[in-house]
Amino acid sequence: MQFHVTVLGTNSAIPAFGRYLSAQILTVQNNLYLIDCGEGTQFRIRDFRIKSSKINQIFISHLHGDHYLGLVGLLGSFNLQGRKKTLTIFSPPGLQEIVDAHLKYGETKLGYELKFIVVDATQYQKIFEDKLVEVFSIPLKHRIATSGYLFKEKPHPRNIDSAAIKKFNLTVEQIKQVKAGNDLLIADTSIPNNKLTYRKKRRSFAYCSDTVYLESILPFIQNVDILYHEATYTDNLREAAERYMHSTALQAATIAKKSNAGKLLLGHFSSRYEKTNVLEDEARSVFQNSFAAIEGESYTYNKD
Amino acid sequence: MQFHVTVLGTNSAIPAFGRYLSAQILTVQNNLYLIDCGEGTQFRIRDFRIKSSKINQIFISHLHGDHYLGLVGLLGSFNLQGRKKTLTIFSPPGLQEIVDAHLKYGETKLGYELKFIVVDATQYQKIFEDKLVEVFSIPLKHRIATSGYLFKEKPHPRNIDSAAIKKFNLTVEQIKQVKAGNDLLIADTSIPNNKLTYRKKRRSFAYCSDTVYLESILPFIQNVDILYHEATYTDNLREAAERYMHSTALQAATIAKKSNAGKLLLGHFSSRYEKTNVLEDEARSVFQNSFAAIEGESYTYNKD
Repeated sequence: MQFHVTVLGTNSAIPAFGRYLSAQILTVQNNLYLIDCGEGTQFRIRDFRIKSSKINQIFISHLHGDHYLGLVGLLGSFNLQGRKKTLTIFSPPGLQEIVDAHLKYGETKLGYELKFIVVDATQYQKIFEDKLVEVFSIPLKHRIATSGYLFKEKPHPRNIDSAAIKKFNLTVEQIKQVKAGNDLLIADTSIPNNKLTYRKKRRSFAYCSDTVYLESILPFIQNVDILYHEATYTDNLREAAERYMHSTALQAATIAKKSNAGKLLLGHFSSRYEKTNVLEDEARSVFQNSFAAIEGESYTYNKD
Repeated sequence: MQFHVTVLGTNSAIPAFGRYLSAQILTVQNNLYLIDCGEGTQFRIRDFRIKSSKINQIFISHLHGDHYLGLVGLLGSFNLQGRKKTLTIFSPPGLQEIVDAHLKYGETKLGYELKFIVVDATQYQKIFEDKLVEVFSIPLKHRIATSGYLFKEKPHPRNIDSAAIKKFNLTVEQIKQVKAGNDLLIADTSIPNNKLTYRKKRRSFAYCSDTVYLESILPFIQNVDILYHEATYTDNLREAAERYMHSTALQAATIAKKSNAGKLLLGHFSSRYEKTNVLEDEARSVFQNSFAAIEGESYTYNKD
């Protein structure tokens, strides 16, 4: 079952060196969740042949242009492509007013319903769930109201353990019983269902951008499989990071280490870095499993 | 002295086949005028190494997304690049409300002044002039209020005619006199200044997008040097063009012919055309000097 993050844009503020602005797609089985939507996101969706009709929710971290200015264009393109399904957009306050102004003067009536959910960027709370995932807001600290997002798979159904089938030499009928959730009576001994089955781990992804170094998020993202954390600067520019309320690669890696993350993705790179390996190397000095995100790449993580 | 049009985007509605959305730069000497600003315009400005600091006026034809959704990103990038010079934006009503909503929720204070001039899209009138050009609104007919723009060079200063210098064997002193605008007295005959000097032709460019086929614009664009006219469809789709209030390549060429244009640029291509030569060929059957615009190319025209 798929659970991976596809990175569409990695630059901060202004596009540079062929790098676009913040946008990522989390794929969970057959569902796509779009997180941030910088200018040009619809170009990247096309470049990377992403089936955008499978996007039903969009999560915007904050209303700085490099994180959402591709949204209105994408909404218009969905409309031209004949979309009928409801689209739900999560964001700190203000986005509906902005989108409504665009639609008003364009005299555009969308052929699908648009729902806006205002996210309280000061609270960690569940803001959404469907059959596959639960999504939680993560209070970040930036120049304006900013929310990170934690995606957590719903508990998987129990799978029958192939070792148990072998060990107890189960019949087809017994396997059916176990799959139905029943215990088994074998030679007068009751074997509880949970000895015969297992659950796959619930995988998780946290998106943390933009933010200062912020230890208060650690409880929310503890043991996350994939952590995306902004790393606008290298640590020699920590003062600039503090001034503009961003993080350094070293700080991102420290958050990854302290949260016991599986993998760290870095992004939101300053245009001063033509190559991003300097940011990756810095992060790896603290947290080995760090990657400077590459646009078009998909990232997954399987814990032992 | 430069007078050329650089095309940044040629597709309509949705980007396709590597084609971006409507945006053009008119270069007149050292000034750049941006006309329309579809999503990704700032990427194109970077791709084609255009000195965007020389843009002081932006002209938006209408508030359909494919013609202006790159504007807010561009304004933000100007700000990050430290712009201080006033920027004036011409557009049918509503754009200021939209831009203000973005700036409000981004809590963005621009470091330069932004002036909005509302263009009455029902009138042909002078809306702007500087040392180099006069700009006129052209009332177009589309689904929402839409204005074309006519750019016309200001009268050039008179140049001394080198043939006259030869013919009358003028001295350095006499040349000075002529340059100062005086007539000359040669062998008791007064030679009027305008026999000794000439003016360069005032060059002009008209941007007409989006619009139905509209003969009422002909008086405004008569004898224009370069006419950009939208050509969303080929003429076998004339009904679709009428329904969506667009033009066909044949119609664009008919306008070029009837206005006695020097050169016709076609653009705003439907995504149904992977190659645009079919549109170019169709236009050339009516008006030979027609070109399907190519992004990154600059177009000029010198009449005999």
